[in-house]
Amino acid sequence: MNRLSGEHPLHVKTEGLLRRLVRRDAAAALKKVFARSRPEDIAAAMEHLTWAEQRRLYRVIDDQDFAADVVSFLSDVSAREVTREMTEEQVRGIVERMDPEHATDLVALLPGELQDKVLQEMEDGAEDVRQLLSWPADTAGGLMSPQVFRMPDTGTCGQAIALLQQEHEQLATVHYVYVLNGRDQLVGVTSLRSLLTSSPGTPLTKIMTREVITVGPRQDQEEVARFVARYDLLAVPVVDAGRRLLGIVTVDDVVDVVHAELVEDMLLMAGVSGEPPAQGSVVAQGRRRAGWLTATIVGGVLASEAIGMFDDTLRQFAMLAGFIPVVMGMGGNVGIQSATVAVRSLATGDLHIRGAWSFVWREARIGVVLGIGFSTVLGIYGWARYPEEPMIGASVAASTMLAIVLATVTGALVPIGFQRGGADPAIATGPFVTTLVDLLAIMVYLNIARMLLGMG
Amino acid sequence: MNRLSGEHPLHVKTEGLLRRLVRRDAAAALKKVFARSRPEDIAAAMEHLTWAEQRRLYRVIDDQDFAADVVSFLSDVSAREVTREMTEEQVRGIVERMDPEHATDLVALLPGELQDKVLQEMEDGAEDVRQLLSWPADTAGGLMSPQVFRMPDTGTCGQAIALLQQEHEQLATVHYVYVLNGRDQLVGVTSLRSLLTSSPGTPLTKIMTREVITVGPRQDQEEVARFVARYDLLAVPVVDAGRRLLGIVTVDDVVDVVHAELVEDMLLMAGVSGEPPAQGSVVAQGRRRAGWLTATIVGGVLASEAIGMFDDTLRQFAMLAGFIPVVMGMGGNVGIQSATVAVRSLATGDLHIRGAWSFVWREARIGVVLGIGFSTVLGIYGWARYPEEPMIGASVAASTMLAIVLATVTGALVPIGFQRGGADPAIATGPFVTTLVDLLAIMVYLNIARMLLGMG
Repeated sequence: MNRLSGEHPLHVKTEGLLRRLVRRDAAAALKKVFARSRPEDIAAAMEHLTWAEQRRLYRVIDDQDFAADVVSFLSDVSAREVTREMTEEQVRGIVERMDPEHATDLVALLPGELQDKVLQEMEDGAEDVRQLLSWPADTAGGLMSPQVFRMPDTGTCGQAIALLQQEHEQLATVHYVYVLNGRDQLVGVTSLRSLLTSSPGTPLTKIMTREVITVGPRQDQEEVARFVARYDLLAVPVVDAGRRLLGIVTVDDVVDVVHAELVEDMLLMAGVSGEPPAQGSVVAQGRRRAGWLTATIVGGVLASEAIGMFDDTLRQFAMLAGFIPVVMGMGGNVGIQSATVAVRSLATGDLHIRGAWSFVWREARIGVVLGIGFSTVLGIYGWARYPEEPMIGASVAASTMLAIVLATVTGALVPIGFQRGGADPAIATGPFVTTLVDLLAIMVYLNIARMLLGMG
Repeated sequence: MNRLSGEHPLHVKTEGLLRRLVRRDAAAALKKVFARSRPEDIAAAMEHLTWAEQRRLYRVIDDQDFAADVVSFLSDVSAREVTREMTEEQVRGIVERMDPEHATDLVALLPGELQDKVLQEMEDGAEDVRQLLSWPADTAGGLMSPQVFRMPDTGTCGQAIALLQQEHEQLATVHYVYVLNGRDQLVGVTSLRSLLTSSPGTPLTKIMTREVITVGPRQDQEEVARFVARYDLLAVPVVDAGRRLLGIVTVDDVVDVVHAELVEDMLLMAGVSGEPPAQGSVVAQGRRRAGWLTATIVGGVLASEAIGMFDDTLRQFAMLAGFIPVVMGMGGNVGIQSATVAVRSLATGDLHIRGAWSFVWREARIGVVLGIGFSTVLGIYGWARYPEEPMIGASVAASTMLAIVLATVTGALVPIGFQRGGADPAIATGPFVTTLVDLLAIMVYLNIARMLLGMG
């Protein structure tokens, strides 16, 4: 079944269909769709429904295993919404059907009281979940799955294959075979393929690789993702300080981490924080965006006060006001460019290596290049517009030059400052940088103008 | 060797070390570092060197296999720089040591003439590379590897294992076993693990899954990445219209695609196009950023012309100029928020499903929510500042309201418009949206002020 080679991806159709069926409350038809769908597709489709629609759709699912699968593929926000109105028993039914990794993710979303109840009553696996819950969510420990195919270093290929047959049901995907010594320490790793291509009597220690790339449980998930990506691994083992194997982080989790971290950065930079912006009420979304805009309004009021100080100058040379937007606009957009480059360079580690000052200095020089070009253009425009007052054009040119250089430097410094201060460098870089640069640009422009026009 | 569990990732140290050694031209010391490093780490470290340093470092590598590995892990820009001064023979030496997938990537970077020469002289694999080159780089075809473990549907598990032993050297990682019928059509897939846990005589058709998720060779790489991520696949087969197996796209490529596409979007939005912004000369980087800033300068000049039309008003009420920045700044930042959300929603397919108008309408309502809040604040500020002229405060309030709503609508419409016009919705969304919104905000503000102050 060539499901995905059509013009449009299948899920778009499924999503439209599901929405229509949910709105019509067509339970029988929905069940038919479920019967021929993968839980991944149902989960993806649910992400685009409203929360009420999500809950209505979920209630139609009979098969508890299918339901648990669907929930395990939902985003955190949606999973929280879907489980919000469930009883403790219903939640436990789902959690018990999930592997420890997904069960932990779901339990972590529950309110504290319900969390304890579910864990107390769970038939088995509660210990695994408790252990996983003890690591911060954005570390290797929070990301790992404890279900690993382990073999003692005294074993042979034949024994590994025999164990693999026994554990057939428990382990979803076997990425690698991890070899442990008598003290549970990771001593090597081998692939299923090596097992296949060796004779059954071969000791595992003979075919295993001893140079295993490992991560610690407290390592940041972004860093873990970088290693998995760099070394093209299918999974990376998580070991404690004593090299005891705690679990593995698999490549599918890494894809999700890379995606989530970058999207978060992108939205944060624009000053949109929190959960997916397409969900939630209009008012909630407005409130979320308003937060960082207060920086803008404070900056704007300061800018307006600053302009107020030049009331006399502006009264005499009203045409000066006309150039405020272009000087501000140039500064703001140049600042955003530098800030975006800085946020990216911090993320790749590039800026860390070059050193902050060398980075800022480079941005400043780029600012000079841009400044020379644009101040010439704007200077000529200003002069052509008011040839009788050549100092207007000169003010515009000089202040564009200065504003652009200040913008590149500010754009570079704000994310670096956030990072140094322990905050995410992407946080509201956009609003902060434009607001700061706007203020600087206006001060520069009006001061230069007053000076050149002989009013200083 | 617990290479990666230290406080700082190893590569940061390696990078600093390599840079110092390259600058000192310490060939012997460099060779020692190479001897105990993975090619992935050397490649990653090289990304942070200047191009001249990269070439100098590369020339020190003796081992041709290691050199080919390093080049295959470099980014496109760096690979192009490193190979720039090589002879045809040197390039061919590298290309011949690479697997077809990486060889194709490198050949694609060569100037046309050199490309032909290298392909003509290549000992083998030229056919594979030619075939892969025929697909656009950002499609499944451009991303796939033709090295797939294939078995006829008449085969057994035992035969598959025997073939796996023979092809040991050629195939780097075996993700799945693909089963083809007599006409080379993909009929099923199975895992190494199923091979391991079945008896040798079992026909492959008995253990294989027939519902294979496939992609077409012209499918966009972003879409391919989305499927692999959604279904947690290790690889997805690429089949033509006749279901003949052309190759596979592996999950490690998908990690790279997800990362590259999002970073590209982020930089594009800020109006920084092209290759990694940390590379290249300051002038080249300046030129790259200047492109999209011309939108800003054109908009700025138009804004200045617009303000010029209100010369009389501004001469009489000079304090009006003071509020230009705050109205503009609010509009600009609100517009960027909406644009970022729109770019993301287009990328996830969310906007496609909701429909453009429902999205724009939602943004407009968010604009009303934000507008009510911020226009109240600014209106009170304006009135407190100039109580003798209450219409100033009223103008500021009314125009903030309108500017914010226009900003959300513009921010939503610009990316949608780009997409409809066949362009990347992220392209310079930042500069375009702020420039448009600035213009709109100024026109709205000054018109309302002139009207309310009784000069219209």
